[in-house]
Amino acid sequence: MKIVVERDSARDGRPVYRQIAEQVAQEIAAGQRASGSRLPPIRDLARSLQVNRDTVALAYDALASAGLVESTVGRGTFVRARETGSNAGIAPEELEFSDLAQKLIDLERARPRFGSDEGAVPMHTLVPDPALYPVDAFRRVLGRVLQREGADLLLYGGPQGYEPLREVVAAKLASAGIDVTPEGVVLCHGASQGIHLAARVFADPGDAVALEEPTYNNVLAVMRGLGLRTVPVPMRRDGADLEALGRILERRDVKFFYSIPTFHNPTGISTSVEHRRAVLEIAGRCHKPILEDAYEMDLRLEGRAVPPLAALDSAGWVVHLFSFSKSLFPGARVGAISAHGRTVDAILALKQATDLSDSMMLQAALAEFVTDGSYERHLRKLRRVLVERRDALLEELRNTMPAGVSWAEPEGGYQVWVELPSGLDTGELLADAVGAGVLFAPGFQFHHDGRPSNCLRLTYAMTGSESLRRGIRILADLVRARLKVGTRSAAAIHI
Amino acid sequence: MKIVVERDSARDGRPVYRQIAEQVAQEIAAGQRASGSRLPPIRDLARSLQVNRDTVALAYDALASAGLVESTVGRGTFVRARETGSNAGIAPEELEFSDLAQKLIDLERARPRFGSDEGAVPMHTLVPDPALYPVDAFRRVLGRVLQREGADLLLYGGPQGYEPLREVVAAKLASAGIDVTPEGVVLCHGASQGIHLAARVFADPGDAVALEEPTYNNVLAVMRGLGLRTVPVPMRRDGADLEALGRILERRDVKFFYSIPTFHNPTGISTSVEHRRAVLEIAGRCHKPILEDAYEMDLRLEGRAVPPLAALDSAGWVVHLFSFSKSLFPGARVGAISAHGRTVDAILALKQATDLSDSMMLQAALAEFVTDGSYERHLRKLRRVLVERRDALLEELRNTMPAGVSWAEPEGGYQVWVELPSGLDTGELLADAVGAGVLFAPGFQFHHDGRPSNCLRLTYAMTGSESLRRGIRILADLVRARLKVGTRSAAAIHI
Repeated sequence: MKIVVERDSARDGRPVYRQIAEQVAQEIAAGQRASGSRLPPIRDLARSLQVNRDTVALAYDALASAGLVESTVGRGTFVRARETGSNAGIAPEELEFSDLAQKLIDLERARPRFGSDEGAVPMHTLVPDPALYPVDAFRRVLGRVLQREGADLLLYGGPQGYEPLREVVAAKLASAGIDVTPEGVVLCHGASQGIHLAARVFADPGDAVALEEPTYNNVLAVMRGLGLRTVPVPMRRDGADLEALGRILERRDVKFFYSIPTFHNPTGISTSVEHRRAVLEIAGRCHKPILEDAYEMDLRLEGRAVPPLAALDSAGWVVHLFSFSKSLFPGARVGAISAHGRTVDAILALKQATDLSDSMMLQAALAEFVTDGSYERHLRKLRRVLVERRDALLEELRNTMPAGVSWAEPEGGYQVWVELPSGLDTGELLADAVGAGVLFAPGFQFHHDGRPSNCLRLTYAMTGSESLRRGIRILADLVRARLKVGTRSAAAIHI
Repeated sequence: MKIVVERDSARDGRPVYRQIAEQVAQEIAAGQRASGSRLPPIRDLARSLQVNRDTVALAYDALASAGLVESTVGRGTFVRARETGSNAGIAPEELEFSDLAQKLIDLERARPRFGSDEGAVPMHTLVPDPALYPVDAFRRVLGRVLQREGADLLLYGGPQGYEPLREVVAAKLASAGIDVTPEGVVLCHGASQGIHLAARVFADPGDAVALEEPTYNNVLAVMRGLGLRTVPVPMRRDGADLEALGRILERRDVKFFYSIPTFHNPTGISTSVEHRRAVLEIAGRCHKPILEDAYEMDLRLEGRAVPPLAALDSAGWVVHLFSFSKSLFPGARVGAISAHGRTVDAILALKQATDLSDSMMLQAALAEFVTDGSYERHLRKLRRVLVERRDALLEELRNTMPAGVSWAEPEGGYQVWVELPSGLDTGELLADAVGAGVLFAPGFQFHHDGRPSNCLRLTYAMTGSESLRRGIRILADLVRARLKVGTRSAAAIHI
């Protein structure tokens, strides 16, 4: 099989999977592949062409939907019988996608599917527990603001967002030491959109971005969707490796540093004020802005708050992202970007060109919810519940996990990062776990290149203490079983 | 002054305005420009460097904020006195933006500012009249769905959106002849986000997109914000020029055609079924998808509905965009993308990587609002009002406009496209109009290159018949005055 793949033609040419599909289609049309003959296994062809397996799978899918081949599970892919001389091209409904869209589809395929394990202990998710949402209180403020402000809340609101909520957010950030006015706040559609907008302000497609590794998995998808390359800065016990950060931010193609200094996702680490000052010094020296994701800033459960990067920043180079999604509920889709000077204008121009405006009625309801004290009341209740859940989870880890397993005790947020003995692959462990009724987020998800990891993220966001304890007991048994297998094969080698 | 601008370094290098600012700063630091000496006028330097005036203005702004120069209105820009040897670099708070962000900022600057003319007749806007919004009815359904479904509506909803609303939209599109199921519908944050997502599915930065000229001004901003070049297809009386469309869609760099076949913005034209079939044939021949923007599809005021492109499309190559923003109100920020096959997967992957999910409570309220008949009732009332407004506006045009002014009578939507005698620049006319208390959208806004136009768009979206009549009378007087001046200077030339 002589298939030639041109990778450099990504811009003007056809996607690699189509190149493969078309050449196979031509061979079938030319009679070089007889009906009933078997195509090479996906893994073999991927290896010989040095492409991703998904790419070959996509090519075979395209051939199947053009009616040229058929696949049988466990047996392989075979050329279908058809009259000679018929049109053997790819089906016309196969549209060509952009490279970026294609990359995102591939990324989606690599996302672990947890299935619909109704009874499983959900320690994989960062979505806050709906049982704790103040539904009635929010419904009442929503009705109240609509009654009071009427049609004004149903208009476009302008790209910057509802002013009273910008005032509320600015006041909240000021109380954390950040120097920002309502004019420096741009409301957005969740912190995810905030990341998206801020990244586009500083980086063009083809540029690179520095981020901690491991890091929030969705931000990897966002950056990839924008055509940005991700350059990992290894996380140490006290935050991003400063030497590596300096080296990376000096690179001309690296345009900014995305960082989660407080209750880092997935590790739970909060960096010290000294580390923060060092990060700012490096960024300043390299003339690179920082995107500070403060998505869990309102979820400190104990210890003293460390000033955000934005509070220590005198140059106005930190763009700060806040969200109500983790501390209240995600369904209002309200986040806030704070920035300085012309950066605000740039964010506004991008917001305008992206979706014009957010929903004013939800922003008005949130403003009212904070102003009338409901948000503070909710936070107090939520923090009490979370302390209890976190302590139960940590205690059960101490009681059940075998030696060689370690974890960090977070001062806030929802997540605990667990490190298993090296050699254990938590992606493989997840398969055991799903079968045994317990879910976690495997470490490979948080790697920019998806390479295997011996770490995993547990969360106490979604379920109560008893369920968490049960989940940890199951997980500890699975880890012990894997360790035993690991020891046995290691022993076999040494014999 | 020896300033060298490297335009091709846009990817790896610094923006042009910074190149200029830095070289001037160096000259000042080196003593080559004495304190008090004048910098070249913006227009002269822009001409000699062959850059946009805004670029030079930006460079001078940067120098001013670095304290190196100061500007005096009407006199020019001068080098400031300062101690020699001091740091003469650009101020550290000047962050470098991406090329895309910089382009969008420039585009924002070019947008006409209508100021806060409270009393002016607002015929410039496509925002529907808030006096017609069914505020109380919507508030009631919002409260009802939150009471019924509770916390479920406050969770992330997944990138595809609330299923009952997808069913409602699919049923509505099916009644217009479109073959789509709820699985083919992706709800999004207004049609603007729909345009944004669909464009990214098919085109990478650097690619080009075909669109009608004139066209919806915000779509020009969206495309530019995505790094796409816009290739205009001239509008004729019956829609896009088919010969030009064929030539343009054949180009390899042109990835799709963005079209508004029904109640086109800004011209109000609805194309015939023959024209639509021809467009589909061309797109099919060139293997290029079509984005059909059906933002006003529910606003037909008279005449028989022409099937949407998506209804005539047998290949599944049309991506159809619907929105509630014009037929109900914009503040729910709900639009819908309908597509087929793998295109849906691609849109979902992009939506996920952009902002995860929209607000389920607003989508649930809209679903309820349609299902319980409130939307149909609202549409009937709205259409009655719009027929009356449109007829008043057209009658007043006929009664007052001088000879040589022509317009199309739209069968629906909100907009009337008016053509003045060639040689009149409606951008200039707008200055007269703002002073006289009447607002319209000047034609240059709808050109991909912003070149002057003798056309303007009037809308009857925002204000009632009497106000519209008054606005038209004022406008007719202004046109007559301009025509008189035009005739006089033409006469002077001929003498």
